[in-house]
Amino acid sequence: MKHLERSSRRQLLRMGAALGGGILAARQDALAWDTPGKLGIPLGPYGERSPFEKSVRWRRDSRTPETGSSFTPLQDSVGTLTPSSLHYERHHAGIPTIDPAQHRLVIHGMVERPISLSMAEIKRLPSVTRTLVLECGGNSAGEWAATTGPDVQRSYGLVSCSEWTGVPLSLVLARVGVRPGAAWVIAEGADACRMERSIPLDKAMKDILLAYGQNGEAIRPAQGYPLRLIIPGWEGNTNVKWLHSLKLTDQAYMARDETSKYSDLMPDGKARIFTYQMEAKSVITFPSGGQTLPGPGLYELTGLAWSGRGKIERVEITTNSGRTWTAAQLHEPRMPIAFTRFRLPWRFDGKPAAIASRAIDESGYVQPTREALVAVRGLNSIYHFNGIKYWHVKADGTVSHAAV
Amino acid sequence: MKHLERSSRRQLLRMGAALGGGILAARQDALAWDTPGKLGIPLGPYGERSPFEKSVRWRRDSRTPETGSSFTPLQDSVGTLTPSSLHYERHHAGIPTIDPAQHRLVIHGMVERPISLSMAEIKRLPSVTRTLVLECGGNSAGEWAATTGPDVQRSYGLVSCSEWTGVPLSLVLARVGVRPGAAWVIAEGADACRMERSIPLDKAMKDILLAYGQNGEAIRPAQGYPLRLIIPGWEGNTNVKWLHSLKLTDQAYMARDETSKYSDLMPDGKARIFTYQMEAKSVITFPSGGQTLPGPGLYELTGLAWSGRGKIERVEITTNSGRTWTAAQLHEPRMPIAFTRFRLPWRFDGKPAAIASRAIDESGYVQPTREALVAVRGLNSIYHFNGIKYWHVKADGTVSHAAV
Repeated sequence: MKHLERSSRRQLLRMGAALGGGILAARQDALAWDTPGKLGIPLGPYGERSPFEKSVRWRRDSRTPETGSSFTPLQDSVGTLTPSSLHYERHHAGIPTIDPAQHRLVIHGMVERPISLSMAEIKRLPSVTRTLVLECGGNSAGEWAATTGPDVQRSYGLVSCSEWTGVPLSLVLARVGVRPGAAWVIAEGADACRMERSIPLDKAMKDILLAYGQNGEAIRPAQGYPLRLIIPGWEGNTNVKWLHSLKLTDQAYMARDETSKYSDLMPDGKARIFTYQMEAKSVITFPSGGQTLPGPGLYELTGLAWSGRGKIERVEITTNSGRTWTAAQLHEPRMPIAFTRFRLPWRFDGKPAAIASRAIDESGYVQPTREALVAVRGLNSIYHFNGIKYWHVKADGTVSHAAV
Repeated sequence: MKHLERSSRRQLLRMGAALGGGILAARQDALAWDTPGKLGIPLGPYGERSPFEKSVRWRRDSRTPETGSSFTPLQDSVGTLTPSSLHYERHHAGIPTIDPAQHRLVIHGMVERPISLSMAEIKRLPSVTRTLVLECGGNSAGEWAATTGPDVQRSYGLVSCSEWTGVPLSLVLARVGVRPGAAWVIAEGADACRMERSIPLDKAMKDILLAYGQNGEAIRPAQGYPLRLIIPGWEGNTNVKWLHSLKLTDQAYMARDETSKYSDLMPDGKARIFTYQMEAKSVITFPSGGQTLPGPGLYELTGLAWSGRGKIERVEITTNSGRTWTAAQLHEPRMPIAFTRFRLPWRFDGKPAAIASRAIDESGYVQPTREALVAVRGLNSIYHFNGIKYWHVKADGTVSHAAV
């Protein structure tokens, strides 16, 4: 904070131009308030946002809106959390309406003592709370072909960050007793399509949560109410929502969403499967596609970085098409597998500029260029794009997608 | 996490009794799902909570609900954040409806260059994000007389924790130029009563925020939309909402809310004033007043601790009326002046028990007993109660307020 304020103060003292328009007749504005006030809205049981706030998730028009995605408006984000109401969605058969008093989690298959747990029983167990990113495996898929959405919401909005609370799955598995030979956990949702994914048992024993809390209250229906898997660092699809059953097996199920979907077709025609891990990634949210800078002057660039492998160690920014990179300020505390907000002052001099961010995580992994990624994975892939993202700031201040 | 899991696993392995009721015919429950599912609710622009979730803020019945308080349902809280919709309220003239495009912040008085800033100009400045508790100076006022509300919501619910984003006030004051002799900042809200508080300039230069973001989106109307002061560690009333003007002066205003209200009447008839700082405090949220344990067995006690002075260093729990105290597990990372969730396993043996928590902050301050607090401050006070809070668990599992 101290360091931040010192360096920010220097920036601000150079911001005379930026504030020039605001040095008005302050006295006049102050006097305008010397009129009687109007009594406001009373205390209320459950608050809403201001009617002046219009930010919403975006989805493609569709005749089957029960299957598809809605995208978080990252361009409007502040701080490090995603409001639950704006958390991205990826549903395969709509959001089921589940009465938590009737809901049960069944754990069966290769276990010593099959069990059926009520929500009350689950909530009575020891719990942990973690702030974690969820990212769809298909986030920023359009970047593979460099024909992506026009703004950061439509191109990068399938990622969100929440504070999750739940019971470590390892504790419950210890209770039911895993039988020798079990190697996989098949998770099944209670949605209409009974969405299924196969999860290696060693990950389940490590850090998976049976989550029922999100940002201080019950998980929202669109995020899996009343119970979902939270699998730190793994693609969203494996974090099965509306969790109904866990079956322990000796083999993976080879379900639809781990064979025909959520697998990566390589240049040689073979497919990578079970590519769960989400790598380090970042994107500038201001200025970003569709926004317009009001004119030359000093701005604060900002954006979000995250990694499925742990903490973000460093974020670097280029404002000259990648010729030079400067370390950005990072929000503290940096939490593993959570959004890390970055900021950097930048003087827009009215000349065109290509700007981008590059994340380095605590494992030492450096977010690659799109070209480096394509050289290895080819152009058949849909999932797991994490290349460096450029925005093009034109002389008139408009910002758009840029293929550099 | 590793340590937590190991110790939690031991607890869970002792939790056979707690899970006894859940070991049902798991196969039967699994088969019950082998029926076709019903297509769910489509993707949506702005999500809502489940219709099964009923937790709301509580307020006293009143013919003037524009002035008063509404209390956060802490008994339903999970994790470390308060959902914005459930953040406590304390309004003096209702919630004004403010168009951010019209709103201006005027900074005047003893400054070199008076200024009137639009929201767009404020948002363009360098910003910081901090997770911070807000607590009403009058939270848990009923504990002074030991005639407090029956549950943790009605007795302790005037405290909430959010992630706030805004501009350091010190940066803007550096820009406008503070004139020699200025010592106070008079903050005025845009609500009907033009709520005012006097804030020492040295605090303003240290860590006060002009905040416009809350939990990843715009501040909610009930929390000061579009702009409020956030004053880390100071009583809620000073964190002026719907901030309209800051006037620099050489003296405090001695406004209504710092003389007749929000001052502490001592036993000798004198009053402490400008008692801004909120001291270390904690409360058990489960089990708490109004809840019922279903029977003897192992439970996880949990609650929240916070301090206006910085990080929570330790929380200790007694389950035997204060005879012995045991250190609780603390959620990490512990952030200064934020909620720290604590947890401890406890075996309820069916005998009456008085349970309480005691917070120690990084300054070494130890949350006092109610008796110690009353010995110093007497019983005339309304504000700044932070004594240790006991709950009484009866043999039948019911929990109530307990004066020990």
